[in-house]
Amino acid sequence: MTKPMIQIALDQTDLASAITVANNVESFVDVIEVGTILAFAEGMNSVATLRKNHPDHILVCDMKTTDGGAILARMAFEAGADWITVSAAAHIATIAACKKVADEFNGEIQIEIYGNWTMENAQEWVDLGIKQAIYHRSRDAELAGVGWTDADLDKMRALSNLGIELSITGGIVPEELYLFEGIKAKTFIAGRALAGEKGKETAEALREQINRYW
Amino acid sequence: MTKPMIQIALDQTDLASAITVANNVESFVDVIEVGTILAFAEGMNSVATLRKNHPDHILVCDMKTTDGGAILARMAFEAGADWITVSAAAHIATIAACKKVADEFNGEIQIEIYGNWTMENAQEWVDLGIKQAIYHRSRDAELAGVGWTDADLDKMRALSNLGIELSITGGIVPEELYLFEGIKAKTFIAGRALAGEKGKETAEALREQINRYW
Repeated sequence: MTKPMIQIALDQTDLASAITVANNVESFVDVIEVGTILAFAEGMNSVATLRKNHPDHILVCDMKTTDGGAILARMAFEAGADWITVSAAAHIATIAACKKVADEFNGEIQIEIYGNWTMENAQEWVDLGIKQAIYHRSRDAELAGVGWTDADLDKMRALSNLGIELSITGGIVPEELYLFEGIKAKTFIAGRALAGEKGKETAEALREQINRYW
Repeated sequence: MTKPMIQIALDQTDLASAITVANNVESFVDVIEVGTILAFAEGMNSVATLRKNHPDHILVCDMKTTDGGAILARMAFEAGADWITVSAAAHIATIAACKKVADEFNGEIQIEIYGNWTMENAQEWVDLGIKQAIYHRSRDAELAGVGWTDADLDKMRALSNLGIELSITGGIVPEELYLFEGIKAKTFIAGRALAGEKGKETAEALREQINRYW
């Protein structure tokens, strides 16, 4: 199994702050994400700027695309994204439209797992050729103190068994990575934990756990 | 029952074009929407600019908020939005976070109906004090030729019976408004149909049907 990568989520509300954070973390992260907040704050200029500043990193635009898939996907890929996110709640035609544009750019689609999705939905994603999904505790659920549950882990294993690589996020800490052992993990995503003063230290601790379990 | 309003969705990929369309239609629409595409293309500057240009219209920011509710809602309301959209697939904690911020600004939340939502979900929205939802054929489903079905209309009536006012969109044409008779319709939303050469004519035809059925 390939080793999971480390992804920073840039959820600043202004591009200048996001640029600073990205510069600070680029040496110890593999994937840079323009978070939904940053993308809505500053538009596709945020993607284009980070693409220019970090040509060798994988760049994700977290649009949680729910409709208008072809246009949104094209905007993000043209701005330089390698991967974009699409909501699990989107109509399958929207997901297919995003996938088609992604293929044109050699990009990839990540399904953002939200809402009352089913394993039948997941099979439809796989049938479209989708290889990635994002599994997380909702930021707001996290704030409400809801932790990783056995139900979460069972669902992740089921998705992994379908062949889907998962990026996992929502209060990721090195001490909990063992929970995800055996799951095809593509990236572990964190924001403040990697952006803060102890960011490099956190990244090193995450790598240590990754090397231990993958 | 109050009469449904007419809403233009600005889904241009650049602000200059959106400004032109908004100027062209302002005399015959009640509600101006910064569509998801425009918001992602140009960021919150698009909301602030349209607020400034159209101080007396209701202004919607169609973010389809799925997570990070408090921050996204604050960004949009601070930029001048009156209403923002929140995905039906969002965690209830996210919807609650958006509602709390909306209340602070005397704004409103519109639930965007996507994914495998249930009437239990809808009851939770109502319990939070949410008064509006958006019901549509997906843009991509519409492109795939999927029309309004009896199932759509049954679901709209059920939501309306819960007290939720619906904004209805997805290939809205005057000749089909009769389908929605008896439903608490807040707005009818169109994009190209109102933005094009025959936009004013279309708006007049919509008003005529609205006056007939509401």
